[in-house]
Amino acid sequence: MTEQVGTARAAQAAPDGLSVPRGSGMAADIDEQPAVFADLLDNHAKAIADVAGAIARKKPKFVVYTARGTSDHAALYAAYLTEIRLGIPTGLASPSAITVYGARPDLSEALVVGVSQSGGSPDIGEVLRVARESGAQTLAVTNNPDSNLAKIAELHVDVSAGHERAVAATKTYTAELLALLMLIEGVRGGNGTLPAEEHAELAKLPELARALLADDTAVELAPRYRFAERLVTTGRGYAYPTAREAALKLMETSYLSGLAFSGADLLHGPLAMADPDVPVLAIVGNGPGGKTMREVLGRLGERRADVVAIGSDVPGAALRIPTPDVDERYAPLLDILPLQRLALALSLTRGENPDAPRGLKKVTETL
Amino acid sequence: MTEQVGTARAAQAAPDGLSVPRGSGMAADIDEQPAVFADLLDNHAKAIADVAGAIARKKPKFVVYTARGTSDHAALYAAYLTEIRLGIPTGLASPSAITVYGARPDLSEALVVGVSQSGGSPDIGEVLRVARESGAQTLAVTNNPDSNLAKIAELHVDVSAGHERAVAATKTYTAELLALLMLIEGVRGGNGTLPAEEHAELAKLPELARALLADDTAVELAPRYRFAERLVTTGRGYAYPTAREAALKLMETSYLSGLAFSGADLLHGPLAMADPDVPVLAIVGNGPGGKTMREVLGRLGERRADVVAIGSDVPGAALRIPTPDVDERYAPLLDILPLQRLALALSLTRGENPDAPRGLKKVTETL
Repeated sequence: MTEQVGTARAAQAAPDGLSVPRGSGMAADIDEQPAVFADLLDNHAKAIADVAGAIARKKPKFVVYTARGTSDHAALYAAYLTEIRLGIPTGLASPSAITVYGARPDLSEALVVGVSQSGGSPDIGEVLRVARESGAQTLAVTNNPDSNLAKIAELHVDVSAGHERAVAATKTYTAELLALLMLIEGVRGGNGTLPAEEHAELAKLPELARALLADDTAVELAPRYRFAERLVTTGRGYAYPTAREAALKLMETSYLSGLAFSGADLLHGPLAMADPDVPVLAIVGNGPGGKTMREVLGRLGERRADVVAIGSDVPGAALRIPTPDVDERYAPLLDILPLQRLALALSLTRGENPDAPRGLKKVTETL
Repeated sequence: MTEQVGTARAAQAAPDGLSVPRGSGMAADIDEQPAVFADLLDNHAKAIADVAGAIARKKPKFVVYTARGTSDHAALYAAYLTEIRLGIPTGLASPSAITVYGARPDLSEALVVGVSQSGGSPDIGEVLRVARESGAQTLAVTNNPDSNLAKIAELHVDVSAGHERAVAATKTYTAELLALLMLIEGVRGGNGTLPAEEHAELAKLPELARALLADDTAVELAPRYRFAERLVTTGRGYAYPTAREAALKLMETSYLSGLAFSGADLLHGPLAMADPDVPVLAIVGNGPGGKTMREVLGRLGERRADVVAIGSDVPGAALRIPTPDVDERYAPLLDILPLQRLALALSLTRGENPDAPRGLKKVTETL
């Protein structure tokens, strides 16, 4: 049996004669991301600015994000943005304190943001309901304006990614990232409107994403991981959500153990298991977060880990997946794209179907 | 070559003739935990109550915990306690927003808590310094009253665990848990003093810990994982920090991939990689968090995962490590003990030295 490497544009034909080739759904979702970016910027900036204006007027003392799975990584990105760009203290809340143990924290001066592509997670909905009751400003960020979360929250941002074909989230993730970035930069602007110079930077993203998706470096790397049973991903600051999301995507589609660590935490214990058998995907930009990763890569080098750098050309990396050299706060919208394609290609290489991972449902219901 | 299972009390003799048997440091640290609990309760309650009183008087609007590695798991436990027992919104902050990107959030109404056994982490120290400058009440929780963190913060809790021999933290972790529990229940009491009925419950912990450490079930399980390359740990609510700490301890000492998921997040993707080859350690108490784990265990059962339950006797688990049936908020102080012993025994079974994991230092310095 010969194996081919799949690409986002040419998913592999199903060997069992099914009419829909394996991975074609995920491939189409991935390829739509430049168009989703452009659509958000061109057609939804006003709706997002209205929500940002409401937040800017309310001036929350702190912000609480709550989410699960892939959306939790978008929330983590938003938490960094909120602290760094707005100077508002921010936390990620576990729903279970409220939903399982009945905690009723005083959120009257908080903005509480639930992020969920389906808008159907009962536990995130319950957190928003409790938060709204306690006087918090509440916001749902979803891909479904008719969803339960959109109804429960006072404010709603529709990430407008369209129907997602595959179970593994790709375009809804980056749409969440961009919508949250537009929202937070709008709040920073003062009245909710995205400042012109920020809009000009964001307007470059669709074309940058298109060019990046045309580069097959990541797809060509898939055979390297054909027999990997585990893989470490790492990044610092804005790049840490990318590391987490890449690990999850590889787990969902290719059934390997994806271990994501912030560069700093990696030095606190998990480094012990780094050895020549452990492949490492390191997200390393040229900004402040990427610079602090140099020491981590040095330590990984001492342990002879097999490091592939996503972004910069760094000493100690065996290979590199190039990504555009943008400000670190934009990088998460781009760096994940080749990693999504790597997950898709690896899944196909392994004979799996990334459109329908075993054991998973599109909407996960937990209380 | 024959292999023996090590126990906390009888670490294995070094095959290379070194005078100190491999694992004897970690074994001694583990065994001291009942005495550390008793010492904290008997001799340090007053000092902790003084700090709790200062917090109760200041009435913070929200609490931010910041920590890394094992101490981050203690901070996560404290975050649950703070939300559930005190009703104060709580977040875990990544130091990098402040230390790498220069974020200066307004923390003037916050309590900011840095947790670090060594008290020497420069990034946690920097967060406390910035927080104190912005008017926050600051607290360092460390095992070293002479440390940098203890000096930077306005308040200090000494977890008083004594010198830790092994690099892998054990007794300093549970000492952090107990000190934080005493602190938070003291704040809840109103004037900082631990309420009498709470003290009576906590006073049972040393004896419960002693009895639990005398049960060798976990140690006898070590050979089962001799060839495991990855292992999933899971728990919900108060049990989630235990799942995270168990995964880290196994990674540090036995070099397998330890993947920790909250029971809810496990259903959002990582479940795909659960199969009969993946061992699962599920922390399942009889309280609200443990009850929500039943569905997770059912789904894992459908995937024929190899589940060992820590705590309750639950359907679908192949084996069980019994732990005392206490209120879920006390369980993290006990449930981790057999898991520490499992990590030690597995490390010895694999011919490693858990006292000195490769690539790690006791004090990790990251900026």
